[in-house]
Amino acid sequence: MQKYFIPKESLEKRIIDNSDAFHIIKVMRNRIGDQILVSDNDKTYLAEIASLENNKVSFEIIHEEAGINELPVFVTIFQGYPKGDKFEDIIKHSTELGCNEFYGVMMKRSIVKIDEKKKDSRLERFNKICKEASEQSLRYNMSRVTDILPLKKIDFSSYDKKILCYEESAKENEQSNFKSIISTLKKGDRVAILIGPEGGIDPDEVSYLIDKGFIPCGLGPRILRTETASMYALSAISYEMELK
Amino acid sequence: MQKYFIPKESLEKRIIDNSDAFHIIKVMRNRIGDQILVSDNDKTYLAEIASLENNKVSFEIIHEEAGINELPVFVTIFQGYPKGDKFEDIIKHSTELGCNEFYGVMMKRSIVKIDEKKKDSRLERFNKICKEASEQSLRYNMSRVTDILPLKKIDFSSYDKKILCYEESAKENEQSNFKSIISTLKKGDRVAILIGPEGGIDPDEVSYLIDKGFIPCGLGPRILRTETASMYALSAISYEMELK
Repeated sequence: MQKYFIPKESLEKRIIDNSDAFHIIKVMRNRIGDQILVSDNDKTYLAEIASLENNKVSFEIIHEEAGINELPVFVTIFQGYPKGDKFEDIIKHSTELGCNEFYGVMMKRSIVKIDEKKKDSRLERFNKICKEASEQSLRYNMSRVTDILPLKKIDFSSYDKKILCYEESAKENEQSNFKSIISTLKKGDRVAILIGPEGGIDPDEVSYLIDKGFIPCGLGPRILRTETASMYALSAISYEMELK
Repeated sequence: MQKYFIPKESLEKRIIDNSDAFHIIKVMRNRIGDQILVSDNDKTYLAEIASLENNKVSFEIIHEEAGINELPVFVTIFQGYPKGDKFEDIIKHSTELGCNEFYGVMMKRSIVKIDEKKKDSRLERFNKICKEASEQSLRYNMSRVTDILPLKKIDFSSYDKKILCYEESAKENEQSNFKSIISTLKKGDRVAILIGPEGGIDPDEVSYLIDKGFIPCGLGPRILRTETASMYALSAISYEMELK
């Protein structure tokens, strides 16, 4: 069943009248009486479509849905800003895998530069991908891209655990830090995972991050692309904490 | 350092004269004296470039490299043939994550049909992606795509463990089968992982696969896209078996 994250006002008025209405009418070709899931990103409800006309969908709520499927920890991916549309792929797949929040991080070896004027439109686009990926994977809550910032403007103080995914650690065969962090996570912990851009992390940045409490971790003995590292980390958290 | 998987004859003659030579000369812009890694997919050697001319590179071997970084188990991904270029992304990322072998599986809900005439050129293309991804991630051995076959023509008898990634298991909150298989793997085991195409696995196919010894497994409580499932499974195997 398709899920839609809708604004609180839409939920209160029981009316969807934005691009989601287009999706319901034209893409899914729903009819009166069909069921959908709606969420204001706080609670999720099973709903039945009551009318569809002129790009406006009204619905009635049947009941609140249980089944919260969020990771037991809050994960923020701090992604060294990559080339091309890789950040979009990272958002899409990491949202499926349970990530809660993303920052794009401008690092020394980031090749793309984002000027302030373009930032808002990028963030809007990225958050649309968060919404769609959250809907597709039936996430209970929506992920979000909070900001794109230079490394040294980010405040990491609110995190309980800080993981630095570090290629050099993999090369040096460091294979215990990541598991020792992940296997001792507690429900409700806030976890920061920092991943460098394609060219890796500059040694100055590594020192800076260690000062900020990050622990350099190898993610196994193979070299992972920047867009694969977050998937490894999130899959491991799910495997460790969600599977029995 | 860049790695190249080269034919046995190339290694014996100490000469590279195919597209890898182009890569060394034109893309990497290597010079005489630069070092590369070469492998005949059996052993890996550190080598020094002795000459470069007319799309031909000769090299001398310095020493054999240790550092085998293969997963402790042999993994074959049986991927329900997906739409678009998703299979290529799956090959690329799963190779980084340690997968040894792939089959494309024509299943009831596979939308793309591959006719026999096109199969060889597809396989050639896919195996080129295997080679490049294996080189990029410094895999000790190269992954391969062995064939594209209808489900019922595949012989699963050589596998010790058979995992069926099943969306309905995730929905029904089945969260113990996968971990109980992965946590009891032994070094050298052969593991088959079957993943359905976008539309999922038909109930008849599920019955058939269970008859063949597959165990339906949920990969956590969220719904994963077909291209994300293999990454979850491989990351979990690495986390369980390679990290300490």
